[in-house]
Amino acid sequence: MPPEPGDNSSLGLALLGSGNVGAGVVAALNEGAARYALQVGRPLALRQVLVRDATRARPGLGDAHLTISIDEVLADRDVQIVIELMGGEHPAREYIERALASGRHVVTANKEVMAKHGAALLAVAAQHGVRLLYEASVGGGIPVISPLSRDLLANELTAVTAIINGTTNYMLTGMARDGTDYAVALAEAQRLGYAEPDPTADVEGIDATYKLAILCGLAFHAAVAPDDVARQGISRLAARDFRYAEALGYTIKLLAIGRLVDGGVVASVQPTLIARDEPLAKVDGVLNAVQIEGDLVGRVLFIGRGAGPGPTSSAVLADVLDVARDIVAGRTPLAAPEQRVLPVHPPALHRSRYYLRVTVQDRPRVLARLAGVLGEHEISIASVIQFETDDDARTAELVITTHHAPGSAMEAALSEIRALDAVVEVGNVLAMGG
Amino acid sequence: MPPEPGDNSSLGLALLGSGNVGAGVVAALNEGAARYALQVGRPLALRQVLVRDATRARPGLGDAHLTISIDEVLADRDVQIVIELMGGEHPAREYIERALASGRHVVTANKEVMAKHGAALLAVAAQHGVRLLYEASVGGGIPVISPLSRDLLANELTAVTAIINGTTNYMLTGMARDGTDYAVALAEAQRLGYAEPDPTADVEGIDATYKLAILCGLAFHAAVAPDDVARQGISRLAARDFRYAEALGYTIKLLAIGRLVDGGVVASVQPTLIARDEPLAKVDGVLNAVQIEGDLVGRVLFIGRGAGPGPTSSAVLADVLDVARDIVAGRTPLAAPEQRVLPVHPPALHRSRYYLRVTVQDRPRVLARLAGVLGEHEISIASVIQFETDDDARTAELVITTHHAPGSAMEAALSEIRALDAVVEVGNVLAMGG
Repeated sequence: MPPEPGDNSSLGLALLGSGNVGAGVVAALNEGAARYALQVGRPLALRQVLVRDATRARPGLGDAHLTISIDEVLADRDVQIVIELMGGEHPAREYIERALASGRHVVTANKEVMAKHGAALLAVAAQHGVRLLYEASVGGGIPVISPLSRDLLANELTAVTAIINGTTNYMLTGMARDGTDYAVALAEAQRLGYAEPDPTADVEGIDATYKLAILCGLAFHAAVAPDDVARQGISRLAARDFRYAEALGYTIKLLAIGRLVDGGVVASVQPTLIARDEPLAKVDGVLNAVQIEGDLVGRVLFIGRGAGPGPTSSAVLADVLDVARDIVAGRTPLAAPEQRVLPVHPPALHRSRYYLRVTVQDRPRVLARLAGVLGEHEISIASVIQFETDDDARTAELVITTHHAPGSAMEAALSEIRALDAVVEVGNVLAMGG
Repeated sequence: MPPEPGDNSSLGLALLGSGNVGAGVVAALNEGAARYALQVGRPLALRQVLVRDATRARPGLGDAHLTISIDEVLADRDVQIVIELMGGEHPAREYIERALASGRHVVTANKEVMAKHGAALLAVAAQHGVRLLYEASVGGGIPVISPLSRDLLANELTAVTAIINGTTNYMLTGMARDGTDYAVALAEAQRLGYAEPDPTADVEGIDATYKLAILCGLAFHAAVAPDDVARQGISRLAARDFRYAEALGYTIKLLAIGRLVDGGVVASVQPTLIARDEPLAKVDGVLNAVQIEGDLVGRVLFIGRGAGPGPTSSAVLADVLDVARDIVAGRTPLAAPEQRVLPVHPPALHRSRYYLRVTVQDRPRVLARLAGVLGEHEISIASVIQFETDDDARTAELVITTHHAPGSAMEAALSEIRALDAVVEVGNVLAMGG
């Protein structure tokens, strides 16, 4: 219910989850309390905090009630906004749904839940006349969702190209700069706390597929499930892929790309060679970047820190302030605008240029045979460079770059290439931008 | 008045001004008509176009009524949103005010009017329960106003650093790359239509001060008038400033900077040396960029095309769609949140590092005298390089870089330096970033 005009009572918040990011949000709420009260028109009060262990002391929680029970949180009728920072699919999805169904607005940073269940949860929110906001789920503090859903709305968007996993970007930046191998870069990232002990979600691109699915939904109004995204991790990258890329004028980034192709959406997360003078090539370290292309605006690029308590708090609290202002003004949520819905094309349709690193027996006519196989699949070669020769093993390493070809054609060609006598190993196959 | 639910009548627009950008907006409205109708829930219809010459044929205007009279435009009761694209201070300001006072929402791209009269016009809008939106007035299609007023609202913003004049950035990029002088770069920009026949507003930084005033208002809630901005144009830059900057590891950009200093705002537009590895140093050609620093988010950077019919239409129509959706939903405008208002400090308080290019008579002890004058004003020297010597004239060119010092101290030191016997000329004085 909208408050009476002039109501100065506080506006109640609940926080689900109290890890690093939760602590950041609590600190920011305390630090900014006076400003936020002015911006909203009423003070914000953190009333309930759902934790795993309610006996452990936590600083800065003031009068908030600590509980391990979602029922207790939702039983507090003065809680109007629930902030979900638990992460993971379960029980976060269920708690978000229960909060929405009980008439609470929800602000979440949960990319996995939004990627897998976003459409269903947004429908629950609409049904109950409340809002579900999730700016913090993609790109940390970089504003991306609000620009996509508001500022660029007049455009027919044609592509979203993003570096949205800070861990892998940190590792790839180090490999490019220091010439280190994957294992060394991973150990360094783990030592600094940028990579988890089990790094799978980051290095295999799973985290990035969640975020890309969310971005594609907003940019193209297409229901892209994480499984719809063609995915390739960075763990096969070797130091010499970076050397060869550099020799070709490129660097390697883990790019999440959603594209409008033939009236549908094609989505991929894969390590990609991009020309060194592309703006995205210069996005280094733990920075994230989202590049959006639209028919009117051309390309716009957003760069910033994609993770950490500060940037995530910035995004979470922007959503909280937005909802809080609506509550105080007694504004009901706008229905999501009707949109045409686009189909999602299978990844095999994805056309790309390719970089192939192949170890071959160093004898005449090997290249002719490779070119022959590629040609039969209508893949034309852009360049061939013989980078290294091992005289003892009588092998050589070839790097072949191709013109645009469908992923399916490259797959088929690769099976034949692997079967060639003269081919010792297909070392790596990477997409090339442009 | 809010429409009846299910109302499918069109929502009336009026366009004031029909130059390049106006034609772009008309083309986009036609091209995107079906999408926009879905997004808004009702079709948009351009009903009135204010032009200078109503007899000249214009393509794509459909049933719109061409007129040279603002009275006729405002007499059309079906016009609910007025789009102002006339540019210039008068009569645009008066027309915007009349439109607002007559209960019309207004979308404008007019940086001069918003910089000089924005606060007053926003008050008129609030008084009449309508909205005044101006995303297109800064940074073309780059979303900046909505991120500042919504997405980064939880932050205490500490600095805005922007490249917001495409003409000068194009010229400076050319000078840095080709080693050309100012006059050559200007002629080239004029030949390509990037610079006006009278380039004063661009090259003297006037256009950038308008945009910076608008940005500072949003970022710091400070009423920064264009005259409050310390302003230095690019016309004194010489080819050798770029050579020397490069030798020092820097490039030169026209930076618009607003900073929170001692509880107030300091604003400047000036050619500035920035380190070549800074992200802003890589923003080249006609691109614009806005970098925002906040306590939570750290630095976020937005890059895109800052001018032209496409990007401007993207921003104008985003505002139009936003208002139109509110009209259809019967939502009344949110009052602007209450904010503390910050004082604007005089430019002399601005502290900066400096680059000084001085031609001196090549004789012993000149440097000691220069250093002495700087030292008396508590300006400490970071580096001195003697770049060129003219043996015939017995002169040498020194480049001195300093540590941080107040602008007032540098002004005072410069008057004394200019009066020194041994000083032939102070060639240039530029701020240095960092």
